[in-house]
Amino acid sequence: MAGKVEDVGKRFAHGGDIYRLAEELRIPERKVLDFSSSVNPLGVSKKIKAEIRKHLKYLHNYPDPGAGRLRKRFAQYHGIDPEMILCGNGSIELIYLVVRALRPQNVLVPAPTFSEYGRAARTAGSGAIEYFLLDSESGFSINPEQFINTLKGKSISSRLTPEALRSFDMAFLCNPNNPTGRLLGREDVIEIADTAKDLGCYLVVDEAFIDFCPDTSVIKYVTNNPYLIVLRTMGNFFSLAGLRVGYGVFPRHIVDRLEEFREPWTMNSLSQRAAVVALRDRVFREETFVLMQEEKSFLENSFRKLGLEFFPSDANFYLLKTDNADDVIRTLRTKGILVRDCSDFRGLDGTYLRIAVKSHKDNTVLVRELTAIVNRG
Amino acid sequence: MAGKVEDVGKRFAHGGDIYRLAEELRIPERKVLDFSSSVNPLGVSKKIKAEIRKHLKYLHNYPDPGAGRLRKRFAQYHGIDPEMILCGNGSIELIYLVVRALRPQNVLVPAPTFSEYGRAARTAGSGAIEYFLLDSESGFSINPEQFINTLKGKSISSRLTPEALRSFDMAFLCNPNNPTGRLLGREDVIEIADTAKDLGCYLVVDEAFIDFCPDTSVIKYVTNNPYLIVLRTMGNFFSLAGLRVGYGVFPRHIVDRLEEFREPWTMNSLSQRAAVVALRDRVFREETFVLMQEEKSFLENSFRKLGLEFFPSDANFYLLKTDNADDVIRTLRTKGILVRDCSDFRGLDGTYLRIAVKSHKDNTVLVRELTAIVNRG
Repeated sequence: MAGKVEDVGKRFAHGGDIYRLAEELRIPERKVLDFSSSVNPLGVSKKIKAEIRKHLKYLHNYPDPGAGRLRKRFAQYHGIDPEMILCGNGSIELIYLVVRALRPQNVLVPAPTFSEYGRAARTAGSGAIEYFLLDSESGFSINPEQFINTLKGKSISSRLTPEALRSFDMAFLCNPNNPTGRLLGREDVIEIADTAKDLGCYLVVDEAFIDFCPDTSVIKYVTNNPYLIVLRTMGNFFSLAGLRVGYGVFPRHIVDRLEEFREPWTMNSLSQRAAVVALRDRVFREETFVLMQEEKSFLENSFRKLGLEFFPSDANFYLLKTDNADDVIRTLRTKGILVRDCSDFRGLDGTYLRIAVKSHKDNTVLVRELTAIVNRG
Repeated sequence: MAGKVEDVGKRFAHGGDIYRLAEELRIPERKVLDFSSSVNPLGVSKKIKAEIRKHLKYLHNYPDPGAGRLRKRFAQYHGIDPEMILCGNGSIELIYLVVRALRPQNVLVPAPTFSEYGRAARTAGSGAIEYFLLDSESGFSINPEQFINTLKGKSISSRLTPEALRSFDMAFLCNPNNPTGRLLGREDVIEIADTAKDLGCYLVVDEAFIDFCPDTSVIKYVTNNPYLIVLRTMGNFFSLAGLRVGYGVFPRHIVDRLEEFREPWTMNSLSQRAAVVALRDRVFREETFVLMQEEKSFLENSFRKLGLEFFPSDANFYLLKTDNADDVIRTLRTKGILVRDCSDFRGLDGTYLRIAVKSHKDNTVLVRELTAIVNRG
């Protein structure tokens, strides 16, 4: 049976699969309340929808393979050389591209974190993946000193060949981390990146949720660190999950190699258009920050009242710990509410679940259902 | 300098890059007449556009990772088990997925043909790629007997180890072939597939343009041939090039392995919706056949009048041969007309170009400009 679960997990171990629950409950997909995928509750802005509508008449054209216009906009937005930017069909494409093109032999990955780093490294045939275990006592925070020591420590291990001295050749950091919401300060990330540079080890910082705390981004530091890679997505903060919009900033010296391994036309033309409009939309950003502040304090207060243990989060989701997580998840499912079962995250067990911050209306429904479960049992 | 050209080619050697020409000529992209990408001139149907508009309100949701509904529709459409179908971000994703998951060591690829088969095999680290050269005297037709002999021939070569007896473990066929438009009959493809099966060699048939001659498809034969793979795209016939819609039919025994290597959420949600609607649209198909018949005879007659050598085509494009191809391509570019320079196709030289069949209005413009070039020089 364990094997069976792992098989299913291998196929799809992520949130957001409203399609399976809708089928299970025989309800339309739009009736599913999805707290399992951490997408901005403001949804896709009217401006983006208008742009997509306008662009429908050019949909027969192949997309711009180099996403030229979009790369220029990202470059302006971040103040970075456009030649250091590659766009992707979601940032997922770029995670896989990086390991495929750079072929790291020893990869360091925190646990728990987003599962695709390890999976990408495995399918690309990386030699070994080592997990840097985070513990619940520290709120799953990454101790930068320990992380640095682990990166360095391997390099003074008892290996024999001089080449083996440079032991880890790639490390991943998700900041803020998924599924914990825990943020590592910018200075800490920079210190880790500096060490990685000294060791000749690529540090891939996945900033999938950093738009919720943008000052912490290290995206500008790629320019001066030939071993730093920063990945971004517009799926979460900008709600473009359905369209797949990702990008990354890469040291110049590896861009040609990445291009060599990249598949053509991965980013569709509507994504390219939508992203350009999203970047310009300051009002949407401001509204998001206001909404997040309000709803996060509403949820935190509710969790406290219910006696539910949660971890402080700098992203738009919370990791909750409760002994009856399995029961909570199952009961919510019967109500058409989807939360993220975290038992398949390496480093977590069956007592964790992740819930996204949604609109006040949706959050109220969730809190009501959680209250019923707590009072019942 | 040759190195430089190859670099650029490596980056993007395909048609449809209206974006670069628009920038070059400082004109809007919509002013470019694109004969270089072979997309149905009827464009994206109104029904598809309406479906996309309707679905915009759900665009914040992650796409269905398994594309369940769409796979069922493809299954119904072709009369095939849905468990044998995988959808992709264009069929390109599936070309790369197949070589990455199956890791063929010796790959047979015709030349000329679509360049991504060879590129995919190379980037996946396949041992050796052998090219089956087609010649212009035969109109670049594939002689099935010779192809079969090549597949077999390697297996009786002077290799030493028993494992090496099974020499080719993957072969590609694009049918009708790109850039020649040449069709191999269904019985011939089946015969090649049967041989491949006996040899334990995967035959990947890319039917990217087969909707223009649908009776020739071997898609149903995958069910009974564990070594046959058929790839399809909705980018060309259904004009969904901008959205990226591909699918493939695979023997059951390799589906799990493909799933293991597949990246999550590659197919965006608008693609999944659009494809379902496209499949239902019989009127669009009928209109396409009528238009193609008319415009293909218009173009063929025009080529004949102009004394331009062209190859008979079963697809929606023509390969032309002319000593001054380079001049033709450059002159047309200055007029905002893009045709496919075929000099980067292995097996072709600088005297070939490919042009798509477009609307009568567009085809008339092309013929007028070609006439001017022929009369001028």
